[in-house]
Amino acid sequence: MRVLITGANGFLGRQLAMRLLARGQLCGRALDTLLLLDTQLDAFAADPRLRLHVGSLTDYALVRRVLADGVDVVFHLVSVPGGAAEQAYEVGYQVNLMASLELLDQLRDSSCPPVLVYASSVAVYGSELPARMNESAITRPQLSYGAHKLMVETALCDLARRGEVDGRALRLPGIVARPWQPNGLRSAFMSDVLQAYAAGQPYTCPVSPQATAWWMSAHCCVGNLIHAAELTGLPMDSERVWQLPVLHLSLSQVIDALAKRFGEHRRGLVSFAPDPELQALFGAMPPLKTTRSRAAGFCHDGNAAGLVRHALNLPNTRVAL
Amino acid sequence: MRVLITGANGFLGRQLAMRLLARGQLCGRALDTLLLLDTQLDAFAADPRLRLHVGSLTDYALVRRVLADGVDVVFHLVSVPGGAAEQAYEVGYQVNLMASLELLDQLRDSSCPPVLVYASSVAVYGSELPARMNESAITRPQLSYGAHKLMVETALCDLARRGEVDGRALRLPGIVARPWQPNGLRSAFMSDVLQAYAAGQPYTCPVSPQATAWWMSAHCCVGNLIHAAELTGLPMDSERVWQLPVLHLSLSQVIDALAKRFGEHRRGLVSFAPDPELQALFGAMPPLKTTRSRAAGFCHDGNAAGLVRHALNLPNTRVAL
Repeated sequence: MRVLITGANGFLGRQLAMRLLARGQLCGRALDTLLLLDTQLDAFAADPRLRLHVGSLTDYALVRRVLADGVDVVFHLVSVPGGAAEQAYEVGYQVNLMASLELLDQLRDSSCPPVLVYASSVAVYGSELPARMNESAITRPQLSYGAHKLMVETALCDLARRGEVDGRALRLPGIVARPWQPNGLRSAFMSDVLQAYAAGQPYTCPVSPQATAWWMSAHCCVGNLIHAAELTGLPMDSERVWQLPVLHLSLSQVIDALAKRFGEHRRGLVSFAPDPELQALFGAMPPLKTTRSRAAGFCHDGNAAGLVRHALNLPNTRVAL
Repeated sequence: MRVLITGANGFLGRQLAMRLLARGQLCGRALDTLLLLDTQLDAFAADPRLRLHVGSLTDYALVRRVLADGVDVVFHLVSVPGGAAEQAYEVGYQVNLMASLELLDQLRDSSCPPVLVYASSVAVYGSELPARMNESAITRPQLSYGAHKLMVETALCDLARRGEVDGRALRLPGIVARPWQPNGLRSAFMSDVLQAYAAGQPYTCPVSPQATAWWMSAHCCVGNLIHAAELTGLPMDSERVWQLPVLHLSLSQVIDALAKRFGEHRRGLVSFAPDPELQALFGAMPPLKTTRSRAAGFCHDGNAAGLVRHALNLPNTRVAL
C-alpha cells in the first residue's frame, strides 16, 4: 500500500502522517510506503516507510516523479490559505486550482482508480448562509480560495463518475488549534483564542462573544480523513462530497470550556474587537445538519470540552476522575 | 467598441456575428471591430469591421494576440459538445475547461473589466432533476461537459466578485434547429426532428413522444446573448449565472406544431425508438421556473409555434393572415 500526502508539512499533514505511520495500515492493507510532498519538510522521525519529496505541487514534473511507481491512496491537503490566496490571487490560482487539477489529471486510471481524499472547505458556501443549513446548501464562495475548492470538488466528482479517480471530498470547518503564528488563514482567530487562553496570554478576538463558528480539532479531522479513505461500497457515480459534521459553538461557549479547563481567572485576558468582515465570513455560521455525513460515519469532537481537549492535546480528565 | 466571439464559426456564433454586424452597435456604442476566433471560419460577407483569427482557443499565444489591442465584450461560445467531450475526454478538458480558464485569466483587468458572456449549459444540472425545478436547483453534472461548464461558471463568478471580469453566464437549453449533420451533441435529436419534418424526410426519434425537453431557437438564444452583454446596473458581487427561460415541451407538442405548419400527412414519417440513456439525460426534463431570469429580461420563444417558426427561420404566418 502506497500512500501520498500533499501538504505533508502542514498542520494537518504532519498529524496525518504520524497517525498513519503509527497505525501501520490503511484500508486493511499494510502501509509500505508513505510519500510526503511539501515545499519544505521539517524533521520527521526516521522511518523506512517514508519517502520525502521537497518541492511544489505546481512542479508538474516532480508530481509525475512522485507518482511514477504508482499510488493507492492520496490525501490532497496542500493549499494556499483563504486570506493569503485572496491577496496573492495568482499563487492561489496556481496551487489551489491549477496544480490540483493537474494532480487529478495525473491520477486518472480507469483500470485501477486510486483513492483521493481531498480537503475541501466550508469556504465553498460563502457568507450568505440560510438560517438552517444542511449538506445540500447552495454554494456561493466569497473568496477565490472557496471558488477554487468548489471547482476541484466538481472535477473530482466528474472523474469519480468516469471511474478514473476514486475521489472523496470533505468540506472542512475551522480546524484547531493551529500553532499561534501568522498563517494566512482568515479563520486564524479560532485557533488563536485557544492557544492564548491555554498559555495564559492576553488575546483580542476579532469577532464578538456571540459569534458562532463551526469547529473541529485536528485530531478529529485526521480521523475523518482516514475514515474517508476507508469508506467502502461507494458506487463510482455516487455523491462524492461530504460536509463534515461540525460543532456549532459561539466564542463564549468555547471560552466557557477553556475557563473550565484552565481556570476562570483567565477570562479577563480575552477582549473583543469585532472586524465586520471576519464576523460576516466566520462569525455568523448557522446550525448545520449533516445527516448524510454522520450516517457515513464522519464525526465531530462531541462537545466544547472535547474540542478543547482534542485541540490542545490534553489528557481526558474524565478518565482520571 | 471591440467585440470578440469565440466559436464564431459555430451554429450560434455565425448567427450572433451576423446579428451584431446588422445592428452595428452593442451596449449603446458603435461596433468598430468584431473579432472572430475559431478553428475554421467559413466565408463571412466582407465587412471592414471584421477581424478573422483562425486557430484554437487552446493556442494561448494566439488568444493573447487576439486580445492584444483590448476588447470590450467577449462572447465565449466555443465548446466541444457533450457527447464528443465525453468520448474524447482530453479534448473536452483542454477546450471546455483549461482554455476557458486561460481566456478568463487573460481577460482579468481590474481597471476596466471586460464584459464576458459565457454560454453555459443545462448540462450542469445532471439527470437527477427535482419534479419542480427553479433557478436554484442543485447542480450535479453527469457529463464532463457539464462539469467543466460548471467549473467555468464558478471561475467567472469569482473574477466578477473580484472586479476583474464583468462575467455573465447563461445556461442554455437545447438550441434548435442545428444543421442536420453529426455534431457530437447528445441532444441532436431536438434539431433533427425539426429539420426532418420540415424537409419531409423520415426520422426515427431516440426518445419517446412523451419525452419532455427544454427548447429554444437559435434566434431567441442570440437575442438572449446580446441582452446579457447589455445588462446594466449589475454590482460586481451580484449573482452572475442565469438559467435562460425555456419552453418545456414534449416531443408530441413539438410535432403537433410541426404538423400545423408543414401538414398532418407527414406525421407518419416520424417513428420512435427510445434510447434509455438519452431519454434520461434529455427526455425527462421537468417544468423549470425562471423568475429571476425573466425579471432580468431574458425570454423564450413564446410557444411551440414560435419555436418552430424561429428555429426554421419561417415567416410569421400570423402576420400574413
